[in-house]
Amino acid sequence: MILGRKHLNENLLGAEYAVRGPIVIRAQELERGGRKIIYCNIGNPQALGQSPLTYLRQTLSLIEHPELMNQQAVVSLYPGDVISRAKSILQRHPHGSGAYTQSTGIPFIREAVAEFIRNRDGIPTDSDQVILTDGASKGAQAVLLALLRKKSDGFMIPIPQYPLYSASIAMYNGNQIGYYLDESNHWQLNEAALIESLEKAKLRGIHPVGIVVINPGNPTGAVLSYDNIKMVVEFARHHDLSIIADEVYQENVYDPDSRFYSFAKIMHDLDITDVPLFSLHSASKGFLGECGHRGGYLELRNISPEVLTEFVKLQSISLCANVAGQLTTYLMVSPPEANEESYPLYNKEKNDILSALKNKAETLKNGIDQIDGLSLDLPQGAMYAFVKIDLPAEKGVNTEKMTEAERLKYEGQRDSSYCMSLLEQTGICVVPGSGFGQLPGTFHFRTTFLPPQNEIEELVLRLKTFHENYVKKESVLS
Amino acid sequence: MILGRKHLNENLLGAEYAVRGPIVIRAQELERGGRKIIYCNIGNPQALGQSPLTYLRQTLSLIEHPELMNQQAVVSLYPGDVISRAKSILQRHPHGSGAYTQSTGIPFIREAVAEFIRNRDGIPTDSDQVILTDGASKGAQAVLLALLRKKSDGFMIPIPQYPLYSASIAMYNGNQIGYYLDESNHWQLNEAALIESLEKAKLRGIHPVGIVVINPGNPTGAVLSYDNIKMVVEFARHHDLSIIADEVYQENVYDPDSRFYSFAKIMHDLDITDVPLFSLHSASKGFLGECGHRGGYLELRNISPEVLTEFVKLQSISLCANVAGQLTTYLMVSPPEANEESYPLYNKEKNDILSALKNKAETLKNGIDQIDGLSLDLPQGAMYAFVKIDLPAEKGVNTEKMTEAERLKYEGQRDSSYCMSLLEQTGICVVPGSGFGQLPGTFHFRTTFLPPQNEIEELVLRLKTFHENYVKKESVLS
Repeated sequence: MILGRKHLNENLLGAEYAVRGPIVIRAQELERGGRKIIYCNIGNPQALGQSPLTYLRQTLSLIEHPELMNQQAVVSLYPGDVISRAKSILQRHPHGSGAYTQSTGIPFIREAVAEFIRNRDGIPTDSDQVILTDGASKGAQAVLLALLRKKSDGFMIPIPQYPLYSASIAMYNGNQIGYYLDESNHWQLNEAALIESLEKAKLRGIHPVGIVVINPGNPTGAVLSYDNIKMVVEFARHHDLSIIADEVYQENVYDPDSRFYSFAKIMHDLDITDVPLFSLHSASKGFLGECGHRGGYLELRNISPEVLTEFVKLQSISLCANVAGQLTTYLMVSPPEANEESYPLYNKEKNDILSALKNKAETLKNGIDQIDGLSLDLPQGAMYAFVKIDLPAEKGVNTEKMTEAERLKYEGQRDSSYCMSLLEQTGICVVPGSGFGQLPGTFHFRTTFLPPQNEIEELVLRLKTFHENYVKKESVLS
Repeated sequence: MILGRKHLNENLLGAEYAVRGPIVIRAQELERGGRKIIYCNIGNPQALGQSPLTYLRQTLSLIEHPELMNQQAVVSLYPGDVISRAKSILQRHPHGSGAYTQSTGIPFIREAVAEFIRNRDGIPTDSDQVILTDGASKGAQAVLLALLRKKSDGFMIPIPQYPLYSASIAMYNGNQIGYYLDESNHWQLNEAALIESLEKAKLRGIHPVGIVVINPGNPTGAVLSYDNIKMVVEFARHHDLSIIADEVYQENVYDPDSRFYSFAKIMHDLDITDVPLFSLHSASKGFLGECGHRGGYLELRNISPEVLTEFVKLQSISLCANVAGQLTTYLMVSPPEANEESYPLYNKEKNDILSALKNKAETLKNGIDQIDGLSLDLPQGAMYAFVKIDLPAEKGVNTEKMTEAERLKYEGQRDSSYCMSLLEQTGICVVPGSGFGQLPGTFHFRTTFLPPQNEIEELVLRLKTFHENYVKKESVLS
C-alpha cells in the first residue's frame, strides 16, 4: 500500500496550526520566485534582523569548543568574565554540550532557574520542580498530554489563543473550551466570560481539567493586571482547575503602566497552595530571541511527588532537552552582573532591543490609527499586535442563519482571503485572526512588530493602500 | 486540589522506561554520596570519556559566534576548510543558530541528507521527504502518533526492544505486538516468530499498522543480514504494514563479516515501492556521539503527498528542531573531504573511536566467556551487549502456574534485583533485560561497551566476583 490520509490518526488530521499554514507556504513560494517578503507571521526575532546578545554567543562558542580557552590569542579577545563563566560551566558540567544530561536537565541550571524565580518573585522555589525543555512548546505539550485523562476532558483556552494549544489538545484527543478575551478591556480575562464558557462546556458533557493563560498575551499583546490574575487563580481554585501559565513574554512589557506578575507570585501572595500550576518560560522571546536554540523551562507547583515522577518519566522517554538550549536558558536566567566586564555591552544590547520593540509597537499603532477600518489597542507587551479589520457584510449572506461551524468556516475564509491578498499585493505576511479564534462577526490579523523600524513604516503605508483598495473592491463585488 | 496520580492520563502512567528507571536513580544517589559509578546503562559516549570530533566543534563554535571569523588570531588557529565551511553555512543560512527554521529543517541540510542517502545506497532520494528532528526519538514518536488511528491499532516491536517504542506506544494509547528476536541466530528476525506474533495479535482483536525494526540492534548489538531485511520487507508488504527502520547505529558495525544495509536500499533493490518506510538516523551515535545536541532525521518513502503534509504540520506545531542539532546532523552527513585540511585529523579521530569500540566489545565478550552462568554473542554492531544470565530456579516457585502478567512481573523482579545488587556491590550500572523484554524463563542485562578500555576490564573482573557470589547466595536462600 501507499500510505494515505485514511491511514492517519484522525486527531492529527483535525489539528490546525495557522501560524505556519497556507499563507506562509505561499509566501515562501513567492520568495523563491524572487519577491521580497516581510515576514510578520511568526515571533522569530533573529530572522528579522535582531542580533544575538554577544555575551551569550561568546559563552556558547567556548562551550562548543573548549580548546579555544587554551589559546592566549583567543582569551585576549574575550572579556574575562565570559572566560570564567565558560570555565565554571564546564567545571560543574564537564560533559559539555555533547552528552545527554539528566532527563530534567543539568542540575546547576535548574538551580539557577529556581534562583531566578526566587529573585523575581520573592517566593520559595524548588529546583527539583523545574524541568528544562526544548523551548516552551514541548513543556506545554507535556502538561496537556499528562492531564487529559478521558475523552470528555478539556482545557479552557483563550480566544484568541496561540494555536500550539488548540493543535496539541486536538492531537491528544482532548476538548477545547474557548473563553473570550475582552477586546473592549485591553484583552484582559473576563470572569463572566470564563463562567459562561465553563457552563456551556459542562452542558456539552465536557469536563474541564485546566485553564491556559498567556501573559503577556499572544496574539493580543496584553499584559494582565494583578487583579485579573487574582481573579483567574480564584476561579481555577473554585473549579478545581490546573493552571498553565504561558509566561514566555515576561520580559516584553512596554507600557509604563503595566507590569508582569507571575501566577506563582500572586498565588503566593494569596497564600493559595492548592491550585496546581505549570509555568512556562523560554529563551526564544524576551530580548534574547534565541528561538533556534529551543531552550525553555517548565516549573510545577502544588502537585504531589508522584505527579513529578510521571513528568520526569515523560521527559526521560525522549531523553533530555538539547544542551545548547539548556545553556541558553542558563544564560537567560543568570546574566552577567553589574560589576562584570561584559555588563555594559550586555545591558546596552538588551535595552536597545527592548526600546526598539517599544518604538515599533508605537509606530504600528500610530500607523494603524491612520487607516479607516483598521483598529488596534497599543500592545502593552509581547511581540504582537492583533489588528481588528472592519469588513463590510457581504450582500446576500446572512451569517445569523448559519450553524456555528458554518459561520466559523465562512468568516475564516473571509479573513484568510484578506491576508492572502495582502501577501500577494504587498509581500506582507501576517496570520488571519481565525487562526487564533475571535468573536463571531469580528475579523483580525496578527502581525509581529519585529521587523526593523523602516520596514514597519513601509508596512503601515502599504497596508493603508491595500486596505482601502480591498474594501472598495469588496463593496463593488457584493 | 493538589494534583495527584489519579488526575493523570492513564496511558502516561502505564508507560515504562527502564533505561532511566529506579536503578539509575539509585546510581545517582550513590554517586552524590561519593561512590564511583560506571554508567553502562545508556548509550552516552561523551559522558563516558569519548571526545567530540574537533572538526565538528570548531565549526559549531564559529556558527555560534561568527565574529570570531573576523579575528586574524582566530582564523590562523583553525584549518582553512573549517572557516570556509562555516562561511558557506552562514551564506546559505544567514540567520545562523538563533532563529526558527522551516518546520522540517534548513533546506540545504535536508538536501545534504538526501545526498548522503543517495551516496550510501545508490538510490533516488527526495529532500522534501526528509524531516530534521531533535534526535531520532522525536522522529519515532511522530510516526507512532501519526499512525495509531484506533484503540485497536498496534505496532509490532522486537523483544528485546529499545523502550522508547513500548513507552511511546503506551502513551499514545496503541497496542504493543511483541515479536521475539532469535537469540540462537545472532538476534536476527525470525519469520515464524513474526507470523506467530501477528496471528496472536489478530486473535486478541488487535490491528497491526506497522513494524519497528532496530538495525543494528539495541539492545542486542546484532547487524541484520541482507536476506533477513528482505524477509521483513516482504512480510510487511504481505501484511500492509508500514516499516519504522531505526538505523541510528548504522556507522557502528564491528564484525568484518557484517555490513549495514538500509531498508531503503533493499526495498529499491527489490523494486518494492508500496511499503511505507520511515527511516531514522541520529547524530547521537555512530562515532560523533553528539547525544546532547539532539540532532537527527526522519526520511519518509512510499507515502502520499497528503501524508507528508500532515507530518510537516505535526513538526510545525512545535516549530522546528533545534538548530545546533540540525547543524550537527549536517556535519555528520557531509564530513570533510579527503583533500581538505581537516581530513587527516577527522579520519584519525573517527577511526580511533570506532576501533576502540570494536576492541571493547571483544574485551567484554572474552571476559563474559570466563564467567560461569553468563553468556554473550559477540556484538556485531551498535554500542550494547545483551548478556544472558543463568539464574537457578527458586525453590517453591512454579512459573508454569503463573499467568503471563504474573510471570513477567516475577521474572522482572528477579533480573531487577540482580542489577540492583550489581550496582550496590560494584558500582556498575546496567539495565535489567526485563526493561527491554525477553523470552519467558530467560534473564539478561544490557550493558554498553562505551566506558574506557581499562574500565571495561575492571567491569568484567568485578562482574565475575559479583555473579559467583550472587548465585551462591541465591542458592543458599532458595
